Amino acid sequence: MDVRILCLLLLLNNGLCSSFELSKEFDVKPLIRDFRDKNTYIRARNEMIFAESNMRIGHDIVLNNQEQKVNQKLMKYKQLEINESRVQNGKPFPPSVSFLTGKPLVEKSQVFQMIKLMPKGAALHLHDCSMVDLKWLVKNATYRDHCFMCTTVKHAVYFKFFGGTPPDNPDCPWKSVKTERQKARSIDEFDNMLYMNMSLITPDPVKAYPTIDVVWARFLQVLNQANGLINYTPVFTDYFYEALSEFNLDNVQYLEFRGLLPQVYELDGTTRNRDWVMKTYNDIFEKFVADHKNEFTGGKVIYSGIRVVPEIDVLNQVKEAVRFRQMYPSHFAGYDLVGQEDPGVPLISYVDALLYPSEHIPPIDLPYFFHAGETDWEGTPTDRNLIDAVLLNTSRIGHGYALTKHPQVMKVVKERGIAIEVNPISNQVLALVSDLRNHPAADLVATDFPVVISADDPSVWGARGLSYDFYMAFMALAGETTDLRLLKKLSMNSIQYSAMNPVEKGKAMNLWRQKWNAFIQQALHQLNQSGEISVFG
Amino acid sequence: MDVRILCLLLLLNNGLCSSFELSKEFDVKPLIRDFRDKNTYIRARNEMIFAESNMRIGHDIVLNNQEQKVNQKLMKYKQLEINESRVQNGKPFPPSVSFLTGKPLVEKSQVFQMIKLMPKGAALHLHDCSMVDLKWLVKNATYRDHCFMCTTVKHAVYFKFFGGTPPDNPDCPWKSVKTERQKARSIDEFDNMLYMNMSLITPDPVKAYPTIDVVWARFLQVLNQANGLINYTPVFTDYFYEALSEFNLDNVQYLEFRGLLPQVYELDGTTRNRDWVMKTYNDIFEKFVADHKNEFTGGKVIYSGIRVVPEIDVLNQVKEAVRFRQMYPSHFAGYDLVGQEDPGVPLISYVDALLYPSEHIPPIDLPYFFHAGETDWEGTPTDRNLIDAVLLNTSRIGHGYALTKHPQVMKVVKERGIAIEVNPISNQVLALVSDLRNHPAADLVATDFPVVISADDPSVWGARGLSYDFYMAFMALAGETTDLRLLKKLSMNSIQYSAMNPVEKGKAMNLWRQKWNAFIQQALHQLNQSGEISVFG
Repeated sequence: MDVRILCLLLLLNNGLCSSFELSKEFDVKPLIRDFRDKNTYIRARNEMIFAESNMRIGHDIVLNNQEQKVNQKLMKYKQLEINESRVQNGKPFPPSVSFLTGKPLVEKSQVFQMIKLMPKGAALHLHDCSMVDLKWLVKNATYRDHCFMCTTVKHAVYFKFFGGTPPDNPDCPWKSVKTERQKARSIDEFDNMLYMNMSLITPDPVKAYPTIDVVWARFLQVLNQANGLINYTPVFTDYFYEALSEFNLDNVQYLEFRGLLPQVYELDGTTRNRDWVMKTYNDIFEKFVADHKNEFTGGKVIYSGIRVVPEIDVLNQVKEAVRFRQMYPSHFAGYDLVGQEDPGVPLISYVDALLYPSEHIPPIDLPYFFHAGETDWEGTPTDRNLIDAVLLNTSRIGHGYALTKHPQVMKVVKERGIAIEVNPISNQVLALVSDLRNHPAADLVATDFPVVISADDPSVWGARGLSYDFYMAFMALAGETTDLRLLKKLSMNSIQYSAMNPVEKGKAMNLWRQKWNAFIQQALHQLNQSGEISVFG
Repeated sequence: MDVRILCLLLLLNNGLCSSFELSKEFDVKPLIRDFRDKNTYIRARNEMIFAESNMRIGHDIVLNNQEQKVNQKLMKYKQLEINESRVQNGKPFPPSVSFLTGKPLVEKSQVFQMIKLMPKGAALHLHDCSMVDLKWLVKNATYRDHCFMCTTVKHAVYFKFFGGTPPDNPDCPWKSVKTERQKARSIDEFDNMLYMNMSLITPDPVKAYPTIDVVWARFLQVLNQANGLINYTPVFTDYFYEALSEFNLDNVQYLEFRGLLPQVYELDGTTRNRDWVMKTYNDIFEKFVADHKNEFTGGKVIYSGIRVVPEIDVLNQVKEAVRFRQMYPSHFAGYDLVGQEDPGVPLISYVDALLYPSEHIPPIDLPYFFHAGETDWEGTPTDRNLIDAVLLNTSRIGHGYALTKHPQVMKVVKERGIAIEVNPISNQVLALVSDLRNHPAADLVATDFPVVISADDPSVWGARGLSYDFYMAFMALAGETTDLRLLKKLSMNSIQYSAMNPVEKGKAMNLWRQKWNAFIQQALHQLNQSGEISVFG
């Protein structure tokens, strides 16, 4: 049998075909005719299926024998889990269920368990104060001395650390967390209340968050609630170290996050400025890498303004970003604007400030990483942020949810390799799409767009690291037959499209390769132990 | 001012720009550079926005002065209505609300009112027994003599006409509708109960229909309930005449529908066969056109098997379709397979039967109109129906919901002008997508794919004619600035992509043009009357 036919058969049976490549360009014209016999038909059909599989993210990955064995196992799980939901078998399909209630379903998945083990490269779209599991904030930060809480009339709990007696706060009087916890019926119940109060988790998300504006209001509020804990200097430094630890534990070796570089406070009420914050990030990156040699690569900060401020503030932030990039070349990447995009000021209104680096003589190189197109509202100023992002030479696009409605922007993105930072769970929880199989990134995956998968604000919806979002990408942004090659390529993409310089990328890829090989060995070992390898032996 | 710049300004302000066209191909490369001044930037930006507007469905339509006035009014309403929902103004956006509860919101829309007046050309994707408002079935069919009903233990009401005493039916005993209605507390309440019982309408669709399989089970059941009324010979003929009347009243001049060509029964229990049914359709088409000269064009039947039968049945149906096409060239179009696609037999399993016409020597010309890709499950046998549909030379694709995940199929569809029959409300109600702004056809609209808008089974969700689906297409499958040119083109597409022959199409287009001009005059008249024209005078 011709190896090409064999490959087609393999592909049709289990989505496995990696030993060689057919030509990528596939001419449809000859197919379009009346078929005079079934064999010709089936051949044309297989060619078309193969041609599509050959356009997908990961089509250029060649799996070795060992990887193929792991892949077979992974695909067995994937097909099993899909079939449990598909065609009247009735189990809810996790990517179709709000993550706020569906997280336990994901955790039961064997596919998810394999993805957790897998090195996922870099997390490129995160935010400073929503990276760490809220349980850590509750179990660590709120147990520290001097921690106070207050509860508003609307039952939102805010926190602050005070050296002495807290000031009067009539609308929301400060109480010692320690005392409140002691007074509580049960410590677990009390801590769980704090956890739920700082998260979006709720038993009926449709009812609790009927519109995107409602969920965003609550989202910004819970971030604000946690900030009282996070922005206390000792917690701040520990929080960031913990963030790196959690991502490292989830087999992520590098991260880039949007940072507001907020004012951080001391017990005596004095505050630390942006320079202190940036230096702290820099030093903790260095320390963490030193503490985790041959394990963790590092990361970079993307300084971010909030898309509501006057243009003069944006100009000052841009200038500050230029300065930070000179001061911290290893750990500072560039500039972005954050906040809910629909009601926010569109990029075009900040264009004078944002053109500052390129209008300078000689031009200043300040990479941008714009959030753009995080909207369902086509044709609006928000939607046009995608156009400004690429015209302003953005290095990547945050979300780019509306991209597929913009054929010209798509052309630029593909030609220039502008990575789209896709955050599936975030887009679901923050009400852009309910069933992740309808996420437009499925089309980007189908046509090998430069896509990276990230987690946005995992803490807020009870996720941790990147694995949950990788699971959604694998199960919902790609079809039943799309295999390990997608995951491997997404993982490699995350390093390729990071803000690292070529030398840094080379080092990171070397480490990634070691981790990948170790993962394959570990997965094979598990298969061997469970005796299942014999099936494929 | 250069007319090109003027046009860009107009476009940016109100989406209006029709007096000329820029070149369609837009080279992005020169844009990608650092901008040295804001003017250059703004020019490049406007060019990119214009280039995208110039790729959309309708970009090639040139509006005359009168059409532009109507368009300005339409766009004023559109922007007003979008802004009422967008950015924390809080009104629910009708395309984001399940139509089962959101229909009254649509009816309040001024955009919808204008769309109702507009000639919408042809409805190309309908089904035989779900075209007529259920109110007609209740208020007309169930009031006829000899009408009996029975209620199952699960509260589903079935109907049948009997000449004498109905037979024993222990599980669901037959009762005279007339008597039951007389016994009811209120006739309105009773009739409303019958109406609701045959429809999917429910106050809490998410709760009532948690999965696609649940809603499909109920959908098939309510179709079945109505069939007891519809398939009684006298009702059957009147039902079809009523269908043509309702679409005609909704300014639709032609229709093509999938027909099962069911057994139709007489009072004495005897039945009429497919030939009788097909002849009846043919004769009623002729009669309706004769009764509505210069108003209605006609229509065609697409004979449809159910995608669960053995292949031998499909072969027999294909042969029968060939015969009908010879017998009724004016009113018979071709063949399709219908039913829920996910659990159904995929096209590939019927390929021997479906290749029959092309394997014949000489090949027999039997147009196919396959439902394909009405699924969220990528990479499954169902999803691959899209591949078989185009390889089997389908004339159009029913739904094609999964199309954008299939780049090779997209290529064929675009190159060969295979129209995609998009039924927005159907896809929402039958649980493929909840917010219609996430419907993948938005991408097809953005890149001028051959799209037609249809209504699928309007009766079942309380719609009527095409206007509700056109409204969804205009508000949700296109952006805020996309204007009357989209609607005009969609309306023209429906005639272009119909199964009419060139002579029939020519006649239909002539009538359509008269209707269009009359619509513009009527709309202008209304604007004049309301004194609003002065704004644009």
